[in-house]
Amino acid sequence: MKPVNVGICGLGTVGSGTFNVLNRNNATIDRRTGREVRITHVGARRDHPDCDLSGVRVSRDIFDVVRDPDVHIVVELIGGTDTALELVLAAIAEGKHVVTANKALIAQHGNEIFKAAEDKGVTVAFEASVAGGIPIIKALREGLVANEIDWLAGIINGTGNFILTEMQQKGRLFDDVLKEAQELGYAEADPTFDVEGIDAAHKLTILASIAYGVPLQFESVYTEGISLVTPEDVRYAEELGYRIKHLGIARRGTEGVEMRVHPTLVPESRLLANVNGVLNAVLVHGDAVGSTLYYGPGAGAEATASSVIADIVDVAREVDSRHAVPHLGNHTWAEGLDVVPMASVETSYYLRMQVTDEVGVMARIANILSDSGINIEAIIQKEPEPGDDTVPLILLTQRVLEREMNAAIDELEGQTAVIGKVTRIRVEQLGGE
Amino acid sequence: MKPVNVGICGLGTVGSGTFNVLNRNNATIDRRTGREVRITHVGARRDHPDCDLSGVRVSRDIFDVVRDPDVHIVVELIGGTDTALELVLAAIAEGKHVVTANKALIAQHGNEIFKAAEDKGVTVAFEASVAGGIPIIKALREGLVANEIDWLAGIINGTGNFILTEMQQKGRLFDDVLKEAQELGYAEADPTFDVEGIDAAHKLTILASIAYGVPLQFESVYTEGISLVTPEDVRYAEELGYRIKHLGIARRGTEGVEMRVHPTLVPESRLLANVNGVLNAVLVHGDAVGSTLYYGPGAGAEATASSVIADIVDVAREVDSRHAVPHLGNHTWAEGLDVVPMASVETSYYLRMQVTDEVGVMARIANILSDSGINIEAIIQKEPEPGDDTVPLILLTQRVLEREMNAAIDELEGQTAVIGKVTRIRVEQLGGE
Repeated sequence: MKPVNVGICGLGTVGSGTFNVLNRNNATIDRRTGREVRITHVGARRDHPDCDLSGVRVSRDIFDVVRDPDVHIVVELIGGTDTALELVLAAIAEGKHVVTANKALIAQHGNEIFKAAEDKGVTVAFEASVAGGIPIIKALREGLVANEIDWLAGIINGTGNFILTEMQQKGRLFDDVLKEAQELGYAEADPTFDVEGIDAAHKLTILASIAYGVPLQFESVYTEGISLVTPEDVRYAEELGYRIKHLGIARRGTEGVEMRVHPTLVPESRLLANVNGVLNAVLVHGDAVGSTLYYGPGAGAEATASSVIADIVDVAREVDSRHAVPHLGNHTWAEGLDVVPMASVETSYYLRMQVTDEVGVMARIANILSDSGINIEAIIQKEPEPGDDTVPLILLTQRVLEREMNAAIDELEGQTAVIGKVTRIRVEQLGGE
Repeated sequence: MKPVNVGICGLGTVGSGTFNVLNRNNATIDRRTGREVRITHVGARRDHPDCDLSGVRVSRDIFDVVRDPDVHIVVELIGGTDTALELVLAAIAEGKHVVTANKALIAQHGNEIFKAAEDKGVTVAFEASVAGGIPIIKALREGLVANEIDWLAGIINGTGNFILTEMQQKGRLFDDVLKEAQELGYAEADPTFDVEGIDAAHKLTILASIAYGVPLQFESVYTEGISLVTPEDVRYAEELGYRIKHLGIARRGTEGVEMRVHPTLVPESRLLANVNGVLNAVLVHGDAVGSTLYYGPGAGAEATASSVIADIVDVAREVDSRHAVPHLGNHTWAEGLDVVPMASVETSYYLRMQVTDEVGVMARIANILSDSGINIEAIIQKEPEPGDDTVPLILLTQRVLEREMNAAIDELEGQTAVIGKVTRIRVEQLGGE
């Protein structure tokens, strides 16, 4: 068979990793693909010091790659959503297959992109957009195809997990760890996407669409970051037998599909609670298979390249052939499956509040919760520090609707005995159904 | 598109699970496949109480399914290797695609079966043959296609892992737990395949072939069971910071490919050390991606059915189309890649021996090891029990060739100060390269 010609747009971290892995493991990849896969064209504003571009056509205008009639597969690794969208749509219009690692692009513009690709009979592959080197799109879309997905929960942002791990293992402060993560290059100069959960929400959008056969709906994801998690919360959670993880959760209930990203207490015995540092993991619960977990590096040049190249090989099998697996795993959408508003989501809660150290305060708080139909599972009440007349009160509740908890928290915060805001972190058992 | 007709041969645990999941999740599976997937023919010696076979053709002769001109995909779930081989070859000869969960069949006869399938232009899919519901074949063959696989290590026999977990968590005896496993239905009446590592060796054969592009070579797997692991070993391992797991390991070294199944000390902090009970997990280290782990149920009716149906859907996409992914992931074999004999494999070792409680014994043993070029990493020496003049001596060594360790153990066992046999369990760090 004729060689498959790959054009790479963008020669940053992932671009250079892809270039180097594809060249280094060339013989093995060709043997597995059954035809030669070669990079013939690179579009990048500048060369990369780690890449030997000799023998490859190099363009400073990435759109030259799209227009190159010899290129079969355009690999979009420039990031961002504006030029990237233009580039991908132009490649599709040229009848080329596309591989991308761009989660923001797929989460926000995937519906439009996949429509264009299907109209044109080409494939857009995006394994690297979720959880870096872990083949989670393939596992969910093909490996678990037999299952109704009850729920999935993932640690899908390495920076956030690094920060929470450092806070837990070393008792460090959020700001302090974030600064180190930025120095180590894990976190961007503007860390908002990572620590406020937007990056995780992009990835969850994609996973939820595949799991439930619903269109990509980034704007419907409930998103809460980790910047308000304190070392005290981490410590109290540990006393209660939990770890705090920043999870992306999709769950199918009677009312529809929940999509939410927030700090979550996870029982310490779960594998997911033991995924540390910059690593990622996704736990998927299907009705037939039960729980399966996928773990590995969620970022990094060569780890991400591993997924980009897996997509290139998948797509190479379709060059001169036909498109096999639908983009989001479903040929038609599931019917009548709405996204559940956060107010209608039910979880358990960890609550922490500072209360005055007087008789009857605990009873009053217990009454407010009980009147809202909220049952208390566990309580930690500490002795006051010398000279302090307030004490921290920590509660673990049973499952209750978010809207009822919101109302109860409003009422708690209205009490003179409760000082300041109530900290609320959701709890997930991640077992069984 | 025309419906895809599936014929199921064998209606035992996995057969009935496949029948029921495919019917229960029919609408979703069709939506994902893009065409109707339906079971039209079941071949089984008897009906199954959990399966409603109305509307389905039922044959008592499984070969009727193979001969049914309307069946596109034959699903072999009868187990064993004699009739199963005959059935699969007959199906291929009829030009039908085959799906099987039969690890022994693939490990022992896969080379012949895949050759016949390729000659005939059909696909034989076997995801369910390794690690039940975990899509590990797909992850390794497609998801990690970009990687040279440095090594992989898996807990791929649930019964063995259940026994070791019970021994570790409850200090129970091997025989005692095995009996319970048989009562619970985890272990067969003849537990040899599970506890002596044959089942794991079948699965490792398949994983190694895909990882390294070498033919299936079941007869070359070094296989050691768990029946000699004692509660003392489990406890001493724990004192040293390790857990004992029964691993299947494939590793590429300078001399070729290692394939081995044996009890292994794994650092307790590794996720793999925390995979408990009947669960399975496979850790794969690729040169680009680093370490990724795949975890889930390795057996069970519906968990295994999840993988069987994933294969059915993959193959259904090829009905009236062309074969995409090569059976063992490689279109041609890797060149010059031999299986390394166990004597040439290098690991660290845990050694336990009973020695006489006299001055100079420790020095003599240390000298024997040192003369063989074996360095000691850690020692546990216990006080003798009252009235006993021998003590257990536990050593953790640095890495050394198996053949050198064999010689050293021979010499140790020749010492009058060493009572009986030396227990030897290999140690793997499972980190980095």
